[in-house]
Amino acid sequence: MAGEPASPSRRRFLGGALGVAGAGAAGAAGFGVSRMVDDEEPASTAAGSQVSLYGTHQAGIATPAQDRLAFAAFDVTTTDVTALQTMLGLWAAAAHQMSTGEPVGGTGSANSNPAAPPLDTGEAFDLDPANLTVTVGFGPSLFDDRFGLENRRPAALADLPAFPGDTLDANRSGGDIGVQACSNDPQVAFHAIRNFARMARGTAVMRWTQLGFGRTSTTSKTESTPRNLMGFKDGTNNILAENTADLDDYVWVGPDTDQPWMAGGSYLVARRIRMLIESWDTDFLSDQEAVFGRTKNTGAPLGGTAEFDTVDLDAKDADGGPVIPATAHIRLAAPATNGGMKILRRGYSYTDGIDADTGLLDAGLFFICYQADPTKQFVPIQQRLGHGDALNEYIRHTGSAVFAVPPGLSGPGDWFGKKLFST
Amino acid sequence: MAGEPASPSRRRFLGGALGVAGAGAAGAAGFGVSRMVDDEEPASTAAGSQVSLYGTHQAGIATPAQDRLAFAAFDVTTTDVTALQTMLGLWAAAAHQMSTGEPVGGTGSANSNPAAPPLDTGEAFDLDPANLTVTVGFGPSLFDDRFGLENRRPAALADLPAFPGDTLDANRSGGDIGVQACSNDPQVAFHAIRNFARMARGTAVMRWTQLGFGRTSTTSKTESTPRNLMGFKDGTNNILAENTADLDDYVWVGPDTDQPWMAGGSYLVARRIRMLIESWDTDFLSDQEAVFGRTKNTGAPLGGTAEFDTVDLDAKDADGGPVIPATAHIRLAAPATNGGMKILRRGYSYTDGIDADTGLLDAGLFFICYQADPTKQFVPIQQRLGHGDALNEYIRHTGSAVFAVPPGLSGPGDWFGKKLFST
Repeated sequence: MAGEPASPSRRRFLGGALGVAGAGAAGAAGFGVSRMVDDEEPASTAAGSQVSLYGTHQAGIATPAQDRLAFAAFDVTTTDVTALQTMLGLWAAAAHQMSTGEPVGGTGSANSNPAAPPLDTGEAFDLDPANLTVTVGFGPSLFDDRFGLENRRPAALADLPAFPGDTLDANRSGGDIGVQACSNDPQVAFHAIRNFARMARGTAVMRWTQLGFGRTSTTSKTESTPRNLMGFKDGTNNILAENTADLDDYVWVGPDTDQPWMAGGSYLVARRIRMLIESWDTDFLSDQEAVFGRTKNTGAPLGGTAEFDTVDLDAKDADGGPVIPATAHIRLAAPATNGGMKILRRGYSYTDGIDADTGLLDAGLFFICYQADPTKQFVPIQQRLGHGDALNEYIRHTGSAVFAVPPGLSGPGDWFGKKLFST
Repeated sequence: MAGEPASPSRRRFLGGALGVAGAGAAGAAGFGVSRMVDDEEPASTAAGSQVSLYGTHQAGIATPAQDRLAFAAFDVTTTDVTALQTMLGLWAAAAHQMSTGEPVGGTGSANSNPAAPPLDTGEAFDLDPANLTVTVGFGPSLFDDRFGLENRRPAALADLPAFPGDTLDANRSGGDIGVQACSNDPQVAFHAIRNFARMARGTAVMRWTQLGFGRTSTTSKTESTPRNLMGFKDGTNNILAENTADLDDYVWVGPDTDQPWMAGGSYLVARRIRMLIESWDTDFLSDQEAVFGRTKNTGAPLGGTAEFDTVDLDAKDADGGPVIPATAHIRLAAPATNGGMKILRRGYSYTDGIDADTGLLDAGLFFICYQADPTKQFVPIQQRLGHGDALNEYIRHTGSAVFAVPPGLSGPGDWFGKKLFST
């Protein structure tokens, strides 16, 4: 990531955003804009653990995974493209403020008028940003005829096909815009999407949201491998932030893409994967280990003794059968089984109470992955898993979405999708 | 809290539990018991931040509030009292193991047999207990004719009356047994209630569950006052752990109670209070501050300049009106307005996604309070708030429960409710 540029005034940034969106958009965003131009309140003293919003790539992808997630998908309700652009500009300014520990617009009300709503909802006042990152992407549905983007849709942003065993809920799937907020403090992460929703009023509405906790993949060599809610270490061989060659090969969109606005970006696939944990918890230990292809306690691949031992897919047991079963998750997800393809996993566990229909816990994995082209990476991998993975007996995919995540913001004045709209 | 006694063997403890429950209960608990008697697996090395399960009072009440909550209410499905007692004994043993960072029963399977389910679900292997506390209480419904407890019900464990404006969901209310698991790690807190549910199989089922984050009250003088999802500091004048006189006066059940098994215990009232945050966020700052009776930014009571300034309920403004409005939350909740009564607040914020009926965020406060007698503390306070609190325009009570929380466990061999059943 590039270092953070010198701090701009909010007023100066807003000029930059409106310079693109058009002065006429100020009315469209109305309330939101009035918040951004307020410089009366002193900015709080920025402090704490910070990840810069600005850089070649958006933060929240190859930056180390925080412990908490608040994800939201939005549907755009306006057909006024300048209103949409203004919202994206306001979001960018707010994302910078929040990631540096400042309230959105200040701690008071617009123009210091008590007979006006507070600028920031307030629940993150005084809190450390705790490495907050806010990552924004665009769904396939945004590229219909509403905003003149029909010819801007990348081929890689195809609608995901139906996979074997899908039991998707439309109310947990899709969306014109996806926002991934991650922080080590859940109140900070929630504050980000709540204030985005507030700034979106009149322009976009939240379609679905998902909280997550306990990252489920290793994203940096500084981290130990976490366990999912099935109790297994999974994602041991994830692409790490330090492996820039893999990031370039598998995660970042290259300069020769069909849509230049996506160069340096990535594609986010989200899958809400419910675990049938009551069934899982009664399964035999040996069966559980055969399902994953790993030892539960140590995380070692079957046939190995330690977590990071090489996964030997060719190893045979005394009877000539495979040590790692043909249907083991580790085998079917392995790059060797998928033409060398890798993805960057960045998911979280979730628990959403009890399923009212069954009385069973609604808990599992909110799977997020990033890649340069889902049609060549997530889709074929998931086709293989959907057909053969022994894990399918214990999971149900209940939500699905894909978003084109544009490259990072260059600094104040840049905003989410600026290149998309200005190309 | 008393210091932790020397660590017992699990096997020795189990004898204690079954000594009360009767040997015949072993079959009733079946699977669970087989887990507890397994001593084959080496215990993991306990480490990390720990709060002892054992002491005069249950942990999780006057111990400092952790940052994460997993709460579950259970309904007992058996009529076999020994099965119920055995479950409570298994829970006590498991609570001790989990709070010391040990897996429940070990990291393997029963009797090290791979053709058996794992003893512990595994997602908390290797994790610091992060001050895990597990607090257990009994609801009014447990004292019906199923278990011979009709004459054991304390007068203070009355069903909560209907309050003005209640919009309760039966699926989020009540329960025979309540379990509050708190930890600074959400995966550890969830692990506790999930494994309790697993041990309950055949004896009790989960009725509802609630996750929370970001404690909403100060519980120790070592903590700063947190903000709720309305952005306000609330609970500034909570009873603190260091104030043992207040704890004795208002939180702990005294020795002269009608039911001696409750001496040293407390009563937990839980209310799921949804905030209509979209409406709240459009309210004027001055109105928001009048609703709470506090300044949003500093937390100072209206008329004061700093958070801990005395709340002057008699102060008049220039026109002779009250500085703190008659309907302000801070006024109606103040001890001075409630005959000096106080409660120990220990709630958490929650966000449960989007309300499918309205498209609005389902977020708010999972209010928990402890007290010596709800009929004299929470009930009259809430009657007053329900009638007059300006906050009512922006909140809805959607869940409700009350539990009698017996005193702390004396050590290995003691279990949740042992005195209740043996009196």
